[in-house]
Amino acid sequence: MIPKSHPRYASLMQRHKIEEGVKQGYVTPTGMIAQGRGEAFDYLIGERTTKPADLAEKAAVAKLSVMRDVVISVNGNIAALCPEDVVELAKALDAKIEINLFYWTKEREARIAKILKKAGAEKVYGTGEKVQVPNLDSARGKVDLEGIYKADAVLVMLEDGDRTEALKAMGKFVVAIDLNPFSRTAQTADITIVDNVVRALPKMIEFAEEGCSVTGFDNNKNLKESIGEIKKTLGL
Amino acid sequence: MIPKSHPRYASLMQRHKIEEGVKQGYVTPTGMIAQGRGEAFDYLIGERTTKPADLAEKAAVAKLSVMRDVVISVNGNIAALCPEDVVELAKALDAKIEINLFYWTKEREARIAKILKKAGAEKVYGTGEKVQVPNLDSARGKVDLEGIYKADAVLVMLEDGDRTEALKAMGKFVVAIDLNPFSRTAQTADITIVDNVVRALPKMIEFAEEGCSVTGFDNNKNLKESIGEIKKTLGL
Repeated sequence: MIPKSHPRYASLMQRHKIEEGVKQGYVTPTGMIAQGRGEAFDYLIGERTTKPADLAEKAAVAKLSVMRDVVISVNGNIAALCPEDVVELAKALDAKIEINLFYWTKEREARIAKILKKAGAEKVYGTGEKVQVPNLDSARGKVDLEGIYKADAVLVMLEDGDRTEALKAMGKFVVAIDLNPFSRTAQTADITIVDNVVRALPKMIEFAEEGCSVTGFDNNKNLKESIGEIKKTLGL
Repeated sequence: MIPKSHPRYASLMQRHKIEEGVKQGYVTPTGMIAQGRGEAFDYLIGERTTKPADLAEKAAVAKLSVMRDVVISVNGNIAALCPEDVVELAKALDAKIEINLFYWTKEREARIAKILKKAGAEKVYGTGEKVQVPNLDSARGKVDLEGIYKADAVLVMLEDGDRTEALKAMGKFVVAIDLNPFSRTAQTADITIVDNVVRALPKMIEFAEEGCSVTGFDNNKNLKESIGEIKKTLGL
């Protein structure tokens, strides 16, 4: 049991959740490596929602609120870290939830669907028949026809660069939450939120419930400012 | 099979070795998180041996070459990543090799000893009776009386901050290889090498075999320069 007073309580709790997910078989070992990379980048932005991240979260919610068909894509790490937040944000944005796994197995899919339903999801996409995303190899390029395939916008979190590029090539509006501002996903998305998902989602729920608007959001400028936040942490 | 031409070949091969170690049971899930953190920091220094790292490697070899009783401390990740390099460096420095595990089990210890012997180690310390390092709780503070306990200098890699501090408190000269220049280990060691172990060890072997000397090495200054290298990568 980690005491709440521990200076690294939040970070250790996240790690614990990921480890539990590995034990239960729905987080892959590679998901642990992703968590470690995330920890390092989170450290570098000071483990807080920076000003540019806050603005990107607001811009993302403002945009997704007015789009017709929005899907939140969920992988193993997200199911381990914050399934309730995913469900709450989906409700606030009137969005769908779809399971999309890099290392897909029927069993992982079923476990994650169960977690999402337990967290309050009424319907989970991506658990039945699937169609192929163009130019993305078969194992990881399968999506739900009624979910991501038809969507206007997709929110991806801790996503692989190839997939983000394939979604963009399909003409989707992509919002990405990624702690690494240099990743292909971060560089490719229409709106990039450089923040920890466990901080970003609760803020986005709040913005969606209260309503918000942002004008003239410039993702490239914002991304540069996120990189600038690392500079502050490093005392450079 | 990852093609050698892949731009991330080296990084993916390291990840693959760590994953194999997890499958074989001697790398812990937490070792995967450590690998992920390392990947992020390696990315930030440009996945190369920087000038300050090169100097720290030279200074470490020059110092360890003239010390009487040197021990190279090995954990699960090191056993997975570069056991042959550990053995070769130990021979070049006339140093001992000791297994020292954060999450110790008899089985992990035995597997790692086997790997090191297969890599050419004649004797592996830390596999028999152990003594307690002062002020470090029992599970992770056990060391070999003839190894780390009596050593003048210890080379630690991917080490936990508490342990590094405990070794320092015992009066050891500590050389650390750590990709995170902000870690307690990096900040506490006498000589800190901010480099990937898979690049650092081969260079150190070369320096040890050729012979080298460094005068007036200032670890604090060098560590600041290592942090400065991140600034270059970030284009700040």
